[in-house]
Amino acid sequence: MKNSLLLSLLLLFAAGCLADISQQYGQQRYHKCRLDRLEPIEPSHRVQAEGGVIESWDPNHEQLQCAGVAVQRYIIEPNGLLLPQYTNVPRLIYIERGRGIKGVVIPGCPETYQESQQSEFPDQHQKIRHVRARELFAVPAGATHWTFNDGNERLVATVLLDVSNNANQLDSHPREFYLAGNPEEEFQRPRSNPEERGRGEHGNKHNIFHAFDDRTLAQILDIKVETARKLRGEDDQRRNIIKVEGPLRVIRPPRSRGGEQQDQEGEEEREAEREYQRPGRYSDNGLDETICSLRLAENIGDASRADIYTAGAGRLSTTNSLRFPVLRWLQLSAEYGVLYRNAMYMPHWNQNAHSIIFVTGGRGFIQVVDDRGQTIFDGEVRPRQILVVPQNFVVVKKAAEEGLEWVAFKTNDQASVTPLAGRNSALRALPVQVIASAYRISTEEAQRLKYNNRDDGYLVPPREFRSAGQRGVM
Amino acid sequence: MKNSLLLSLLLLFAAGCLADISQQYGQQRYHKCRLDRLEPIEPSHRVQAEGGVIESWDPNHEQLQCAGVAVQRYIIEPNGLLLPQYTNVPRLIYIERGRGIKGVVIPGCPETYQESQQSEFPDQHQKIRHVRARELFAVPAGATHWTFNDGNERLVATVLLDVSNNANQLDSHPREFYLAGNPEEEFQRPRSNPEERGRGEHGNKHNIFHAFDDRTLAQILDIKVETARKLRGEDDQRRNIIKVEGPLRVIRPPRSRGGEQQDQEGEEEREAEREYQRPGRYSDNGLDETICSLRLAENIGDASRADIYTAGAGRLSTTNSLRFPVLRWLQLSAEYGVLYRNAMYMPHWNQNAHSIIFVTGGRGFIQVVDDRGQTIFDGEVRPRQILVVPQNFVVVKKAAEEGLEWVAFKTNDQASVTPLAGRNSALRALPVQVIASAYRISTEEAQRLKYNNRDDGYLVPPREFRSAGQRGVM
Amino acid sequence: MKNSLLLSLLLLFAAGCLADISQQYGQQRYHKCRLDRLEPIEPSHRVQAEGGVIESWDPNHEQLQCAGVAVQRYIIEPNGLLLPQYTNVPRLIYIERGRGIKGVVIPGCPETYQESQQSEFPDQHQKIRHVRARELFAVPAGATHWTFNDGNERLVATVLLDVSNNANQLDSHPREFYLAGNPEEEFQRPRSNPEERGRGEHGNKHNIFHAFDDRTLAQILDIKVETARKLRGEDDQRRNIIKVEGPLRVIRPPRSRGGEQQDQEGEEEREAEREYQRPGRYSDNGLDETICSLRLAENIGDASRADIYTAGAGRLSTTNSLRFPVLRWLQLSAEYGVLYRNAMYMPHWNQNAHSIIFVTGGRGFIQVVDDRGQTIFDGEVRPRQILVVPQNFVVVKKAAEEGLEWVAFKTNDQASVTPLAGRNSALRALPVQVIASAYRISTEEAQRLKYNNRDDGYLVPPREFRSAGQRGVM
Repeated sequence: MKNSLLLSLLLLFAAGCLADISQQYGQQRYHKCRLDRLEPIEPSHRVQAEGGVIESWDPNHEQLQCAGVAVQRYIIEPNGLLLPQYTNVPRLIYIERGRGIKGVVIPGCPETYQESQQSEFPDQHQKIRHVRARELFAVPAGATHWTFNDGNERLVATVLLDVSNNANQLDSHPREFYLAGNPEEEFQRPRSNPEERGRGEHGNKHNIFHAFDDRTLAQILDIKVETARKLRGEDDQRRNIIKVEGPLRVIRPPRSRGGEQQDQEGEEEREAEREYQRPGRYSDNGLDETICSLRLAENIGDASRADIYTAGAGRLSTTNSLRFPVLRWLQLSAEYGVLYRNAMYMPHWNQNAHSIIFVTGGRGFIQVVDDRGQTIFDGEVRPRQILVVPQNFVVVKKAAEEGLEWVAFKTNDQASVTPLAGRNSALRALPVQVIASAYRISTEEAQRLKYNNRDDGYLVPPREFRSAGQRGVM
Repeated sequence: MKNSLLLSLLLLFAAGCLADISQQYGQQRYHKCRLDRLEPIEPSHRVQAEGGVIESWDPNHEQLQCAGVAVQRYIIEPNGLLLPQYTNVPRLIYIERGRGIKGVVIPGCPETYQESQQSEFPDQHQKIRHVRARELFAVPAGATHWTFNDGNERLVATVLLDVSNNANQLDSHPREFYLAGNPEEEFQRPRSNPEERGRGEHGNKHNIFHAFDDRTLAQILDIKVETARKLRGEDDQRRNIIKVEGPLRVIRPPRSRGGEQQDQEGEEEREAEREYQRPGRYSDNGLDETICSLRLAENIGDASRADIYTAGAGRLSTTNSLRFPVLRWLQLSAEYGVLYRNAMYMPHWNQNAHSIIFVTGGRGFIQVVDDRGQTIFDGEVRPRQILVVPQNFVVVKKAAEEGLEWVAFKTNDQASVTPLAGRNSALRALPVQVIASAYRISTEEAQRLKYNNRDDGYLVPPREFRSAGQRGVM
Repeated sequence: MKNSLLLSLLLLFAAGCLADISQQYGQQRYHKCRLDRLEPIEPSHRVQAEGGVIESWDPNHEQLQCAGVAVQRYIIEPNGLLLPQYTNVPRLIYIERGRGIKGVVIPGCPETYQESQQSEFPDQHQKIRHVRARELFAVPAGATHWTFNDGNERLVATVLLDVSNNANQLDSHPREFYLAGNPEEEFQRPRSNPEERGRGEHGNKHNIFHAFDDRTLAQILDIKVETARKLRGEDDQRRNIIKVEGPLRVIRPPRSRGGEQQDQEGEEEREAEREYQRPGRYSDNGLDETICSLRLAENIGDASRADIYTAGAGRLSTTNSLRFPVLRWLQLSAEYGVLYRNAMYMPHWNQNAHSIIFVTGGRGFIQVVDDRGQTIFDGEVRPRQILVVPQNFVVVKKAAEEGLEWVAFKTNDQASVTPLAGRNSALRALPVQVIASAYRISTEEAQRLKYNNRDDGYLVPPREFRSAGQRGVM
């Protein structure tokens, strides 16, 4: 009896949640954009700080405007600390090289890392997170965020800032609010606005404490005037990334280290996720057990977790909000790809997303085709270059002798790709007679076209291409 | 004990789903639009293909820009095949005349229509769908779609393309990506951009295979160079709709035929929907049993399923996402209406949607009133004309001698209409004393105004109007 | 066995609902806005009607355009009736002074207030709602709405119109559709459009019945021609707010009266909310028990319900969609604040919303700081002034001798605020060593900065400031 009530309630919710399929389309990214010609773009602005460098791509470049995103790249020296800052947009970060620790302050979450009460100054702070090469890291909009390089080599990270995200109620210019130091502005202002440009040239950007005078700040915070002066970043020449003297002491559980092996922290978080989904362990403290313990890092580049692997051709790994739930919040997902020398990623299109390709290694050729069958890009790409492939446009990638490695950010938390041929293609879903009629070919040839091509439909080893050109995809 | 846990979880979800009422507002359609004057608009562009004609309305017309939609119309000859293509926007199609079969390739769904393994070339493909006159048909964004006229008369269909849908991450120009042939461009490019216009004039649009050269394509797809050439649509003069010689052989279950009778396929799908909602039959294969078997067709025009019927006046049928769940995805709904000679559809407004009226038969008069009480349109409408009625503006329709038949697409998946008078009007919900004070009339007159008018509040037979004018609504 | 099926279904829905955290970001409010300099803005337009005055702020002011909202203020004399009207945008109303009764016609909801059948003209209408000073009142988009002042003093109410809400499919100009009278236009038209301005000057705005001629209207509504003429507002000089002669008789349950005491109606509604969430009382009539009985009023200003209270400093009350569920629909929330003489609201930022501050009493100083640490406003604010504080910008408020009282509308249904210092600040979540390194201060000083400041972190009494300046925040 009681169960039937439950069942009817469940059906009610089922109806509500079926509705949610509409959300796979994500949010509005409705832009005027000129899509006639693409070109790989490189960083055009650079901030040199004491502890590293921040490069940024022009946020007003038509390709980035069309995709509604901005991109920057941190290069943090060993012992470098990227100062705490928050932005009005979510960030999805790909760690290219090195390792580090990160703090992401999620408002309302408790300080769960605590020192023994025996220590002289017992401290406590929010969770510390470890990152290393080939991981994705998500920072929600409005979350204060800092990064420290605790390794022996440079920590290099590429950051996608989703200025089109609903979280952003300001304009399309990414704004970083620093809580400390005397940081320089990271993104160029629009060229079209002379007044804005004038401001951009005025040199350093100051942190948000800078607007208050020393004495006022000292009163507000109940600190010495001298300390207040330091909070305001006066006379600080270290800029956005500073160099810490000696090791940075933070509270953190021991970390297992190992080359390609999954580090323990990630395991623990995944374990916690499983726990959370086990009924009977659901706690009243919804905030603590949901948002505060949300996993923010995801290994995307390890060979052993590839989603698609074709011997001799390469491998692809994707992650979306089903695998990495915080992406639901960011409305983004990502693909990591490696193509071996001269191998090809079959022509395909991104069904429900733009793809912002960032080349991380090797060299290759990319061709992009529009709705008229016109090629709008066919050329070489190299590391540190970005290419935006608009939604639905056909793209094909081919590695050069050096092979090709990239990460592609997608503007949908469940981005999906359709290949032009193979098991997952639209051709495979069409009746043979429709194919024969559409292309004016015989039934046999239509059969061959539909069934005889590469079975995976994604990656193709080079031996299958008898002659590959020097320039362009073929 | 265990049940109380369940109950608390349920309440949690209830809270989440109450939240969903906010979604009845749909998505952002925030446009600058000049709403001072309306006019019925006719198709302004025409593609003549071997197997039929495609007409389109100027997507840059201020009325369509204001509503954030584009409209086109297929006229497919018997044995005509509209070539497979996909777009970046969802499409809601109203079948005016004829019958046909449609394929909609939903990525990730299995090829569930299979031939006996005894046949010489055993084929398999995704579900085939039957359509006939007065049905609505939904094609999600990004789904490859083809149509074949398997009847004896022309298949005529009007298509609403919702360029404002969140699924579209490109600009507001509808783009069709053909997988075959040598199709001509279906929509005019914006006049304001000379460069774009120049491109628009360059003649045929090619399919997405066209950008690759024959040899490359043959290598990629492992087919003959000659076949590749045909894939690329070289020398194909048949354009968007081709003529199939002989019957098109596809795999499909037998179809029951009958004039106004509900065809069996629809019944089976509705049966499947009921099955799906029965607990205990829920399968693990969520994709297969939800999205892949989603019903895409809905009969809207049959007299027997009218939602509102007033003898002597006419009938109205509406469908929304509660009745036709795929509309949740499209964020659209529709109304089908018939007014008998000289009958009237009471003044009313669309509360949460624009209404894109497409006249399918007869002749009539429509008047539209803005927030200042100014008439912005008062004139005749004829078949093949479109009129956009903006959200909240008051509209009244009156049939001419010939009667009037139309379908109205609404830009909300749960569009609702409020009549100015009658049982469902705002007047009926106001206290009599508020009415008397507001209009400076006596309590008796306010009573009469509130209670004595037409009880249904929607359709009014002509005998109740003593004199109807020749021009304009009255 | 059966329970495990239920549990798996629940997990399925849990996944769906976790997804909903993405919605805390609300909807797109993506505007170009110049954020270099702010200024308090006052009403610039005024409609003088028989029964009161309507003031409005210029909806094209850059601050309001940036926030995507419009603001107006009703001053209704005793016995004044604001005529029934609906708009294309949701409205959140703050009652500054006085009391009144309101009708909100929610389409599809029944007329549940009924007179005894013994009365001469037994009337019935939708629910009547009581409001009084310091309450918030929500009117969903498209709902017809009227207000009557049944008290002895003026009823003064400030109205936020959320033109950016997804419910609005028209442009950014707020449009009010009156059902009666001869109302004047309430908002100025954009200055940039001469044609529009011309129309704005043409004098009175007419109600939506005005477009029909008397005889037609009489036929449609089955009323006398003379009554139709009155519906059309001909010769009505009373404008938007009329004066009712004698008491306005509406059907309503008895109302308990008392100064600061919670009135009974509110209690009953809250009781009904609790009832609704009790399983076993869930009714089939979903519409009636959910949307139709939704609570539309919320007391925000009573001292006894303050969320934050600091003796000697002041109090803050906030309300969001968790406490006041209809806000989920409006995607708005609000904060009510009182600062005692010379007290300060600590520097803080709005994490996920713009804040539209409306000063209701006293006098104070506000300082606003941008992402570069530049002060974009530092000045005095007085009653009837509005200041928009953009998302993420730092703001600090200080009361003058008279104290300061305000209501702030937030453009997110779960707006959240982060203070610069104190228990809820980002500083408190950072490791001491990160603070010490970032600010170049000693560990002891970092400890002091992190832990020794005001514990609440929001409101600070004046005695803690040794010297407060005469002009500007400090």
